[in-house]
Amino acid sequence: MTSEEHYKKRKPLHDPDVETIVAGIMNGNRQMLSRAITLVESQKPAHEHKAHEILDRCLAKKTAALRIGITGSPGAGKSTFIEALGDEILKSGLTLAILAVDPSSHHSKGSILGDKARMEKLSGRQDVFIRPTPSSGYLGGTSPRTHEAILLCEAAGYDVILVETVGVGQSEVLIESMVDFILLLMLPGSGDELQGIKRGIMEIADSVVITKTDGDQASIASVAKAEFEAALMMLPAKHPFWHRNVHLTSAIENKGIKEVWQDILAFFSEMQKRSLLEERRRQQLKQLLYTVVEERLKKEFYTSPEVLQSIERIEEQVLSAELSPFSGAKTLMDAFRK
Amino acid sequence: MTSEEHYKKRKPLHDPDVETIVAGIMNGNRQMLSRAITLVESQKPAHEHKAHEILDRCLAKKTAALRIGITGSPGAGKSTFIEALGDEILKSGLTLAILAVDPSSHHSKGSILGDKARMEKLSGRQDVFIRPTPSSGYLGGTSPRTHEAILLCEAAGYDVILVETVGVGQSEVLIESMVDFILLLMLPGSGDELQGIKRGIMEIADSVVITKTDGDQASIASVAKAEFEAALMMLPAKHPFWHRNVHLTSAIENKGIKEVWQDILAFFSEMQKRSLLEERRRQQLKQLLYTVVEERLKKEFYTSPEVLQSIERIEEQVLSAELSPFSGAKTLMDAFRK
Repeated sequence: MTSEEHYKKRKPLHDPDVETIVAGIMNGNRQMLSRAITLVESQKPAHEHKAHEILDRCLAKKTAALRIGITGSPGAGKSTFIEALGDEILKSGLTLAILAVDPSSHHSKGSILGDKARMEKLSGRQDVFIRPTPSSGYLGGTSPRTHEAILLCEAAGYDVILVETVGVGQSEVLIESMVDFILLLMLPGSGDELQGIKRGIMEIADSVVITKTDGDQASIASVAKAEFEAALMMLPAKHPFWHRNVHLTSAIENKGIKEVWQDILAFFSEMQKRSLLEERRRQQLKQLLYTVVEERLKKEFYTSPEVLQSIERIEEQVLSAELSPFSGAKTLMDAFRK
Repeated sequence: MTSEEHYKKRKPLHDPDVETIVAGIMNGNRQMLSRAITLVESQKPAHEHKAHEILDRCLAKKTAALRIGITGSPGAGKSTFIEALGDEILKSGLTLAILAVDPSSHHSKGSILGDKARMEKLSGRQDVFIRPTPSSGYLGGTSPRTHEAILLCEAAGYDVILVETVGVGQSEVLIESMVDFILLLMLPGSGDELQGIKRGIMEIADSVVITKTDGDQASIASVAKAEFEAALMMLPAKHPFWHRNVHLTSAIENKGIKEVWQDILAFFSEMQKRSLLEERRRQQLKQLLYTVVEERLKKEFYTSPEVLQSIERIEEQVLSAELSPFSGAKTLMDAFRK
């Protein structure tokens, strides 16, 4: 028997059932939580089915983690900041789940070199769960799957969930529908001011964090702070009760991190005072319903054998102006209905 | 017989058939072109069917109008600029179709007061077709229907098509898929610099036009020009052969308008030299195919009697956490499949 044959004959990896995984998640078993997220991210129909069974059960458990989105351009220092903020969160006795953008993924455009070294201070701790999220064709590393991973972390009882995302276009709208508070990280002098403003992410930020304000950067940073404050003044309020702050931070010097965390806590306290968090969760679930519906609808359409059989031909006919896009669409819809 | 009864008994308005409308469009009958656009914009299934028959026939006629998108915040002076540019275009002997944002519509946030006075110099002319586009729930006044209206104007033989849009979020992606050249209008000192950059419209602009650079505005304008030029330098090139210009214009003083038109012509000449326009048209048709397909798919779903019967109940169950969004989506998909 060759080693390959031997390998093939090995017992399949332990494949826990829905019961086991759900019980594991509820009991804080991180391996089971990881497995569930893997199922959620899988493209296989059987996995999807299982993932939804798990999610159904997990949703039954009422939880209310603080969900925080952390966005910013590549190079804005997101990992380093998350590590510092995470440390602050843990100091206050809360547990923490981090859904981080996978730096090896194409879309995140993060540094692959930094991969191993990322968040090494946090990754060893028992009260922290770190999970890289694959971008899987979604810009900015956020997809409807991220929402599902958040729900699973919540069911596992984590108090705070940090969701890292790269600030590009569509991902902001998505992240906005999943988290409660959005921190925008900015590195002044890197062209970030323009990029950040340009990409429409200032509008959805609840707080702006200027990173790496140490050494030479200190003077640029305070000018940038004034500029961001002026820019924020011009934007409509996101919440009537909330004033967006601009924080000067340095992860190396541990400067301003505590203030950011206190800012976040103040926001949640205002939300809870007004009983807004529960309504927000309801609206988020509703949004997820329609996201999932439309995703499935499109998937069903584009994987239907009848559509697959004719789609290439129709596209070619449209490209060569033999068929109008309207007749083409009609033909495809007719095929789908069969 | 009361006047109301009399009204009801009147003959229905002349309802021309597809043949008549198509022939009318091809012969430059503006009334028929208007009717066709009205059919395109209608929500009624019978109208939609007729509209697509007309579009099918119109597409058969190969045309290549210069399609120009004109975007900018409300108050940036779009109508006045379009009037001045339109005049310049007509002077060069070309015919012109303008798809303007309806200022009375809610989303455009344009001035209703200015409605009657808009483009009065152009609206009387035989070589100009002006059509207000309803925003119909789409931000910025651009919808897939705008693309269809463009196709109809093209079939009617107009040489240049100006599409006005209000620069807000999604509409940029849409307009980008319909036109060849995008002019971004900016009014300095109005907070437009920030707004324009913020909304991601600088990235899709092929040329920036600073408006109202007369009187007191003249000095602010030249500072703004330098700023925009610097900002544009930081953006990736949209076309490798095209350098984005920033123009100082005043519609009142007829300043810079001719230069903008020459800039546009230079762009199209570069496109034609490289045979890029034809490929662009093909890709635009392909994009329209999938836009129409997904629109129809969603429409079919959300108007299906089986879905309508259960959607409210399911949404409520999701909101009250009785049902997960995943099970909810599955139930709706099962209902749809029936």
